[in-house]
Amino acid sequence: MTQPTDQVVEARVPDRADLGRALLAPRSVAIIGASDDVRKTTARPLRFLRRQGFAGAVYPINPRRETVLGEQAWPGIAALPEVPDHVFIVADTRLVVEAVRDCGRAGVPLVTVLSGGFGELGEGAERLRELLAVAAEYGVRVIGPNSIGVVNPRNGLMLTANAAFAEEGIPVGSSFVASQSGSVIGALMTRAKARGLGFSGFVSTGSEVDLTLGEICAATLDDPEVGSYTLFMESLEHAADLAAFAVEAAARRKPVTVYKLGRSDAAAALAVSHTGALSGEDDEADAFFRACGFARVDNFEALIETEALQRRVGPPTTAGGRRVAVITSTGGGAAILVDQLETLGVTVTRPSRTVFDRLEGLGLDVAESLIVDLTLAGTRHDLVDGALKVLRASGEFDLVLFVIGSSARLNPELAVSAIAEHAAGPVPVAAWALPDALESVRRLHEAGVPAFRTAEACAQAVAATLGRRPVDPAAFRARRTELPADAYALDEASSAAVLASLGIRFPVTTTCGAGGVPEVEPRFPVVVKALSDRLPHKSDAGAVVLGVQDGAGLRAATSTIVAAVAAYDATVPVDRFLVQEMIEETVFEALVGYRVSPTVGPLVLLAAGGVYTEIYEDSALRLAPVTEDVAREMVDEVKATAIARGFRGKPDGDLDALVDAVVRVSRLALERPDVVEAEVNPLAVLPRGRGAVALDALVRLSQER
Amino acid sequence: MTQPTDQVVEARVPDRADLGRALLAPRSVAIIGASDDVRKTTARPLRFLRRQGFAGAVYPINPRRETVLGEQAWPGIAALPEVPDHVFIVADTRLVVEAVRDCGRAGVPLVTVLSGGFGELGEGAERLRELLAVAAEYGVRVIGPNSIGVVNPRNGLMLTANAAFAEEGIPVGSSFVASQSGSVIGALMTRAKARGLGFSGFVSTGSEVDLTLGEICAATLDDPEVGSYTLFMESLEHAADLAAFAVEAAARRKPVTVYKLGRSDAAAALAVSHTGALSGEDDEADAFFRACGFARVDNFEALIETEALQRRVGPPTTAGGRRVAVITSTGGGAAILVDQLETLGVTVTRPSRTVFDRLEGLGLDVAESLIVDLTLAGTRHDLVDGALKVLRASGEFDLVLFVIGSSARLNPELAVSAIAEHAAGPVPVAAWALPDALESVRRLHEAGVPAFRTAEACAQAVAATLGRRPVDPAAFRARRTELPADAYALDEASSAAVLASLGIRFPVTTTCGAGGVPEVEPRFPVVVKALSDRLPHKSDAGAVVLGVQDGAGLRAATSTIVAAVAAYDATVPVDRFLVQEMIEETVFEALVGYRVSPTVGPLVLLAAGGVYTEIYEDSALRLAPVTEDVAREMVDEVKATAIARGFRGKPDGDLDALVDAVVRVSRLALERPDVVEAEVNPLAVLPRGRGAVALDALVRLSQER
Repeated sequence: MTQPTDQVVEARVPDRADLGRALLAPRSVAIIGASDDVRKTTARPLRFLRRQGFAGAVYPINPRRETVLGEQAWPGIAALPEVPDHVFIVADTRLVVEAVRDCGRAGVPLVTVLSGGFGELGEGAERLRELLAVAAEYGVRVIGPNSIGVVNPRNGLMLTANAAFAEEGIPVGSSFVASQSGSVIGALMTRAKARGLGFSGFVSTGSEVDLTLGEICAATLDDPEVGSYTLFMESLEHAADLAAFAVEAAARRKPVTVYKLGRSDAAAALAVSHTGALSGEDDEADAFFRACGFARVDNFEALIETEALQRRVGPPTTAGGRRVAVITSTGGGAAILVDQLETLGVTVTRPSRTVFDRLEGLGLDVAESLIVDLTLAGTRHDLVDGALKVLRASGEFDLVLFVIGSSARLNPELAVSAIAEHAAGPVPVAAWALPDALESVRRLHEAGVPAFRTAEACAQAVAATLGRRPVDPAAFRARRTELPADAYALDEASSAAVLASLGIRFPVTTTCGAGGVPEVEPRFPVVVKALSDRLPHKSDAGAVVLGVQDGAGLRAATSTIVAAVAAYDATVPVDRFLVQEMIEETVFEALVGYRVSPTVGPLVLLAAGGVYTEIYEDSALRLAPVTEDVAREMVDEVKATAIARGFRGKPDGDLDALVDAVVRVSRLALERPDVVEAEVNPLAVLPRGRGAVALDALVRLSQER
Repeated sequence: MTQPTDQVVEARVPDRADLGRALLAPRSVAIIGASDDVRKTTARPLRFLRRQGFAGAVYPINPRRETVLGEQAWPGIAALPEVPDHVFIVADTRLVVEAVRDCGRAGVPLVTVLSGGFGELGEGAERLRELLAVAAEYGVRVIGPNSIGVVNPRNGLMLTANAAFAEEGIPVGSSFVASQSGSVIGALMTRAKARGLGFSGFVSTGSEVDLTLGEICAATLDDPEVGSYTLFMESLEHAADLAAFAVEAAARRKPVTVYKLGRSDAAAALAVSHTGALSGEDDEADAFFRACGFARVDNFEALIETEALQRRVGPPTTAGGRRVAVITSTGGGAAILVDQLETLGVTVTRPSRTVFDRLEGLGLDVAESLIVDLTLAGTRHDLVDGALKVLRASGEFDLVLFVIGSSARLNPELAVSAIAEHAAGPVPVAAWALPDALESVRRLHEAGVPAFRTAEACAQAVAATLGRRPVDPAAFRARRTELPADAYALDEASSAAVLASLGIRFPVTTTCGAGGVPEVEPRFPVVVKALSDRLPHKSDAGAVVLGVQDGAGLRAATSTIVAAVAAYDATVPVDRFLVQEMIEETVFEALVGYRVSPTVGPLVLLAAGGVYTEIYEDSALRLAPVTEDVAREMVDEVKATAIARGFRGKPDGDLDALVDAVVRVSRLALERPDVVEAEVNPLAVLPRGRGAVALDALVRLSQER
């Protein structure tokens, strides 16, 4: 029901469907600042659009010229015969705000801004404020500034100044590229093209002052031809948008592969355009990507090649699915891949005797080993096919990797053609060729078999794909990154009270009088000490009794102490005693921490206590809260917990209690939004069945505002 | 002077020059077992030799046929019109020994054996014994068995059954490939070819029952066209031959790059043909390659690309030479490379203000940063040239890395052509292109600029090349790998005596009487204790005095103890005292170990003491003996030594003393050939200036034989 109104009609902010269409399928586009000089960067978008045959209307806008590259030039957006869906602004920085205003007035839903010069100090910051105000006023959404543009190779949409897109034949594929680096989109395209792969679209997200990488990706989720996502990130910002996208992408079974700079502090510091970049942020990004269900790779070409493996393997599951078989026609090549896999933590599964018996039944001469080596058997099509059938039908594997020898280059009719027939059905097959064999890699891709150019990328893709966890929306629900300007620390007792309220166990401490009746029932065994400020060296005075097992022992202990102190110094009266739970069998000391990151929100940390933690950076970090399963994964990830697993004859530690403590501390995210930081250090892990006890704790609360 | 003799004329064993010629430049070759069936592996060598136009005589030997592939077939070696220099035996396993005997009788210096089936149990082992006996009898040298052959692309010598060599145009380059895996030689050739690189020769070393990988490489050292070596190893055996080769290769400035399988135990176990493969052997191989001055890479394509960088950088030096500049026309690409470099431990050096001023003087718009980013300045030939000149002339860098953006693919006349002009002169320049740009990579190679296809291989090549150390012949002189069948452990006192004789410090312990005059001058401060078997709890009895600083204090301490014990229990006489160096300010506990490896000989190990060492595998291993420089490098390599560097307010530890202890323990290799194993654990590292003291020691000696 439309109500009559005398207000100014409010700008209609484009919804996701509008954005998605404007982004990748605009009916018409305009280029503000299009140059007539072919040597100029600003001449590229029009040239590229024409070269790739974009079918929609294209309006070059250049008020100083009648024509641009032989086409009619328009003086401005207002002069156009229709409202373009997507405008690429390549004009001088000083003209950008007015250009966006013109777009807004005309009702353009989306602009992409190439120009830089926004968001730094002084003039740039002022310009940015104006840009955002104008965008908000008219409801126009902005990609950039500093975006090298948007490309859709499916319809020839080349709103880009990236020189790489000058060439013919931009290949089409399933994955949508979103990159915080402009030059990387061209590099991904050319490297994919070389191996017969393509993408469904590209966006250079630029400075993300309005539309963020997560929002842009979300706008493409309804595009049925976008099957997966390929993200290149310089730093993690706007994590909430990315999390929202991740949950939806997972629901639609569209996998995401991400390469993020900043494993090293030096590279993190280079990502200067993103001021959110902090040292140490990379660990947080890792925890975040894990909660998103993304596959993170560190090998640049693996960023191209992993998506096919992810689509073939399917969404991650919580349990199992990580049994990898290696089969080969080159023993040396297979050993290279096994070495790379194992150093990334992927264990190759040895086929059973039954499998080797079945292979022998096919007439194959294959020695029992960790891998199936067909070198002696030969790489005939039928033999390779038969061997793959045996492995896939065995029920022993979740993924079969084939390492192809020299036949991949010269005789694709042997192994390659047989592998290509194993593209469908349960138990995916993927392949790496030892020699240079791009034609075979292409052929396998076309058949639907994930294939890799290098062993390193193959191993990374397998490790990242099998290492994914299902997206964890619960981890995002507690998200809260607004930190108070300052916070204050509670004292030890108050800190302990906060953590004890979540179920973290502290040593039970009480007191009793000379009769040995404690105020609170203690947790035996206990230590009994005289309570006196006149006994600075209690042990010397015999004023401490260890290992008291029960109430009778407690009464006896008080008598013993009274007598000993009387002998030591008859002037000291003793009538009060401290009764404290005795923690003396600590197997392992852990640190359990909690903090709220301005980037990704609440995080829980597990590390070994003591100096070595810091030296070896041996810790596990996750978004909080965590489930028991995730906490157990964290315990397994911290190497030092090996000390609590019967290491060198030590007793087993109560790692279940450690898992429980991690879960409880992580619940601060849900139950105590006022807590910005907490640390239990050390948490003493006792022998199995005896629990874990916090020996010290610190909690910081947000300041009242 | 030849003496008349009635002995059988002894076979002349070919010397290195003979071997080198027979290996790569034979005047004539024969193929025993050459097949007429083109589908058979054994037909390949003749086909490949003809296809590549080998100019020497080729004799196919097949007693069952008149012709082979249209050529005259010969019934046997004895029937040939000349003695071939090199015979490739591709015949059935059972015929190999007789074939070698025929070669020996005829005076053939070198045979290469393709067939397998030697060296395992039973029949194979017997066959191997016969093979070696025949070879020794006639002085014929053997490559293999299980060798896929020998290739020299310079003269068309294709004594190989590797299918990869079927193709036209095997490219020629500088480096000689020696591989323990047969299929890898073809893969290296094809992957090198794809980027415009080639090799000067290939050998598949097979089982190395006679000629070892090191010996074969040594035989090519005099070949002036062999400029470097590319080794693919499955496991390290025959290390003495490799060491001898390494010393000579270094003297001739022919660098060596090595990729060795077995970083993971699983891959090590796959190298089944090499029985020397042991778990943990990889660390020893690493120590060995380091002493050899080799560059070890873990990225397969880096094995191809590193040799050009090594040749350009020149031999390793002990000091410096590791300042790396990064310059780029793509900020995102440069960040990728910086990230990869830093995670491999290569620190990128920031150009000084002066450098940026000079760049500005050229009219270049370049922001001060860790890298020189020409994105805004543009990638014009003259600008790139000017910027490279500034960096190279600055005296601030030992290596300049250029990361090329999209122009590498479409506009090589811009940055690529400028970089190509910087091939010569001091301060090498190397390049990586972010997009797929193989043509530019080829062009740079041709110009003499090391260029890389992936950031990962580039970073590995740089890290491995800058991480090389000069070959250390001294480390090989103590080589001794013959271990006794069993050895025996000395008791603690005798173990300490062995190590003390090398200068390892143990706590000085002596005794004194009631007068306080010690038998041996103690090292103050000392602990003084009553010597009495009637005082099980000495502290309780006041029978221990800590922190005694000098002789006067010692006398006072004895009086104090006498008085205290008299008060505690007047029946206990006290007239002897233990005077022991007081070790109570340990900053850091280290483990210094020594062992004789059956593979590489004496090794010295430094690790942190305690359980964490084992968990984090935090240790440094080197061939023994080591110099002070190497020992210091080991101390720097062990992360836990950070505890002794003012960690968390702790005092600095005496790391000079730790270095000294490592050097002294390593001298067991020279001074105590009877010691097979030694361990100081823990070695207490005291505060700086106070030294390091061994608190426990164990030595194992070889059994008298």
